[in-house]
Amino acid sequence: MLEVSLRGATMPVSPFRKLMPHAEAARQRGLTVYPLNIGQPDIETPPAMLAAVQQADIRVLEYSPSAGNESYRRKLAAYYQRAGIPVTAEDILITTGGSEAIFFALMSCLNPGDELIIPEPFYASYNAFAVATGVHIVPVTSHIADGFALPAIAEFEKVITPRTKAVLLCNPNNPTGYVYSRAELEQLRDICLRHHLYLFSDEAYREFCYDSTYVSAMHLSGADEHVVLLDTISKRYSACGARMGAFVTKNKSLIAAALKFAQMRVSPPGLAQLLGEAATDLPETYFHHTKAEYVKRRDLMVSRLNAMPGVFCPSPGGAFYVIARLPIDDSEAFAIWLLETFSHHNQTLIVAPATGFYSTPGLGKNEVRLAYVLNRDTMNKALDCLEKALEVYPGRIG
Amino acid sequence: MLEVSLRGATMPVSPFRKLMPHAEAARQRGLTVYPLNIGQPDIETPPAMLAAVQQADIRVLEYSPSAGNESYRRKLAAYYQRAGIPVTAEDILITTGGSEAIFFALMSCLNPGDELIIPEPFYASYNAFAVATGVHIVPVTSHIADGFALPAIAEFEKVITPRTKAVLLCNPNNPTGYVYSRAELEQLRDICLRHHLYLFSDEAYREFCYDSTYVSAMHLSGADEHVVLLDTISKRYSACGARMGAFVTKNKSLIAAALKFAQMRVSPPGLAQLLGEAATDLPETYFHHTKAEYVKRRDLMVSRLNAMPGVFCPSPGGAFYVIARLPIDDSEAFAIWLLETFSHHNQTLIVAPATGFYSTPGLGKNEVRLAYVLNRDTMNKALDCLEKALEVYPGRIG
Repeated sequence: MLEVSLRGATMPVSPFRKLMPHAEAARQRGLTVYPLNIGQPDIETPPAMLAAVQQADIRVLEYSPSAGNESYRRKLAAYYQRAGIPVTAEDILITTGGSEAIFFALMSCLNPGDELIIPEPFYASYNAFAVATGVHIVPVTSHIADGFALPAIAEFEKVITPRTKAVLLCNPNNPTGYVYSRAELEQLRDICLRHHLYLFSDEAYREFCYDSTYVSAMHLSGADEHVVLLDTISKRYSACGARMGAFVTKNKSLIAAALKFAQMRVSPPGLAQLLGEAATDLPETYFHHTKAEYVKRRDLMVSRLNAMPGVFCPSPGGAFYVIARLPIDDSEAFAIWLLETFSHHNQTLIVAPATGFYSTPGLGKNEVRLAYVLNRDTMNKALDCLEKALEVYPGRIG
Repeated sequence: MLEVSLRGATMPVSPFRKLMPHAEAARQRGLTVYPLNIGQPDIETPPAMLAAVQQADIRVLEYSPSAGNESYRRKLAAYYQRAGIPVTAEDILITTGGSEAIFFALMSCLNPGDELIIPEPFYASYNAFAVATGVHIVPVTSHIADGFALPAIAEFEKVITPRTKAVLLCNPNNPTGYVYSRAELEQLRDICLRHHLYLFSDEAYREFCYDSTYVSAMHLSGADEHVVLLDTISKRYSACGARMGAFVTKNKSLIAAALKFAQMRVSPPGLAQLLGEAATDLPETYFHHTKAEYVKRRDLMVSRLNAMPGVFCPSPGGAFYVIARLPIDDSEAFAIWLLETFSHHNQTLIVAPATGFYSTPGLGKNEVRLAYVLNRDTMNKALDCLEKALEVYPGRIG
């Protein structure tokens, strides 16, 4: 018999995609469906970035170097330097989205069967990367009660084994929006040094830090060999479709290993590199505007959620997500009910059940992740729907 | 100690990249260095493709569906249908270059330790994909004496084991330029049916078939569940830097598994999809012009090579490579000598040692791959260099 591989069979279906048929059915019934479930901002991609591609004089769209165009790597290094991160072009591989940076990190640092510690809830696709690379994710649970702060470091120590090779931190965090403090990062650094672990820092949302000064894992001293910065322009410049990221480390052996995976796929996307390079020329004020907008959206979302009876939502310091605890029996059932049964003035919304972000079974059943990526008018309409829905949901508890 | 993974350590360095420091040193000494070693055409990327990107009205560069834009998949299906390949949009996943299509195929069909049979010499990066995915490549040797025709089917039968899961054929072949006949493909199909193997068909060079009517693996009857077409626009439209490919199969379970790997990286590159979609609108005459040009280049290269004493070069029916047997002791030593020691009127060339394309140690030591991707004037100058070089190379034999 012709069968798919075991890894093909066990790869998880994206939890977002599971809801798509239900959302499609709701739209077919004529409903307006507000997508609060995915991190696709409605913010315009900076026209200067698009212009860089659209005005480029290209005769032959040739392979770029496997590490990415030299000019882009230099300018990206300068961007990091402006953020107090002392890297050079030699420390950077341009990747096909942040996804490929994650893939390079797992492939280059871990063998099949090795363990990767991640605070949960975490970005659901990490599960897929783990299955694809044969790596075991070991979750350490963070809690909504303290806003999803870093779990006590003793919880990390407890799960370290001889197979543990790395800790992965998403900062600011997707899905919780939590921004880790310097003290928390230093604690993590210290156990990575003590146990010879890599520290993977997914900083996709690095520019979206609202209440404090952002600390990158690359700001930590004494951990140059350990830290790998995983980056992307997707969220930073509302350019999710470009697929343009970076793998950054000062560890020379590691970047040499990762480069071989980069050579395997020859080049990162050529046009998107032009887009990324142009992004490094944007004025600092670009982030002032976008951050100001996201702060307003966050404040609106958090205050409205907490005003709903039985709802608890910590106010996160970064990214553009919140996790809210709802008075519901089961977040997956609730998400489907919103699309299949509920409507309010011919509208409804999609939420991301938080179960998809936890590795420990049973967690997240009364939590959902909501993205504040839509303008406030639209968000208000979506939150009106949520408020009404919670009043009438048959699985309401508490 | 902090170490890179075993797979990171054992990943092969691209054989092309090994020569790069030597080529750079030659350029630093003021030499003109003709790159006959890589398949980077000098043919212009069709302006209509670039215009599709450059004139697109994009406000937010959003994620595309993981399978690729519906409009592109439909038009690509129509392109295949025009070539007599009866697929629909549902049978297609848009990938990040042909590379990702190869990756999806290995991940979805083979487990670590499974075996993949490939006629050698073969595209060197297959080795890298095999290491990355834990797959073992089992080579079956083809020979320059018969122009690298498909080895006797008994040679395939001999190496099939319970771990064999697939055969990979590149047609037209890189690096040999050989175009497999319908009879050869049917023989391969039959053993794949008999032994329950997938048949991966890398058709990157499908439009570059000069002396016969091209037969795709997807033209074979009775093998819909087995055949996976791996495709790319890189060579077809001289758009190597775009990173735009496709994974195509009528096997529903397989495409469902591959889609999960596609979801893992969210989307293929967005701008490149516009480029690819525009390519499907090019008139048929586009290929007439480019093929006519490549035929002239091939004929020039093959006739000049065979006119050199001690050189033998079969005339290949497709792609834009030849493998030539040279009167030399060691193709790697020769390639380095060309860059380090030799010059002719202040010029030299880079050749690809064929050793990098064989899996069996020792094979390819007196063979090189040459790409006829440069205009004929430039090619003549490069071949003048090669002719002179062979006269004076200290390792000349025979």
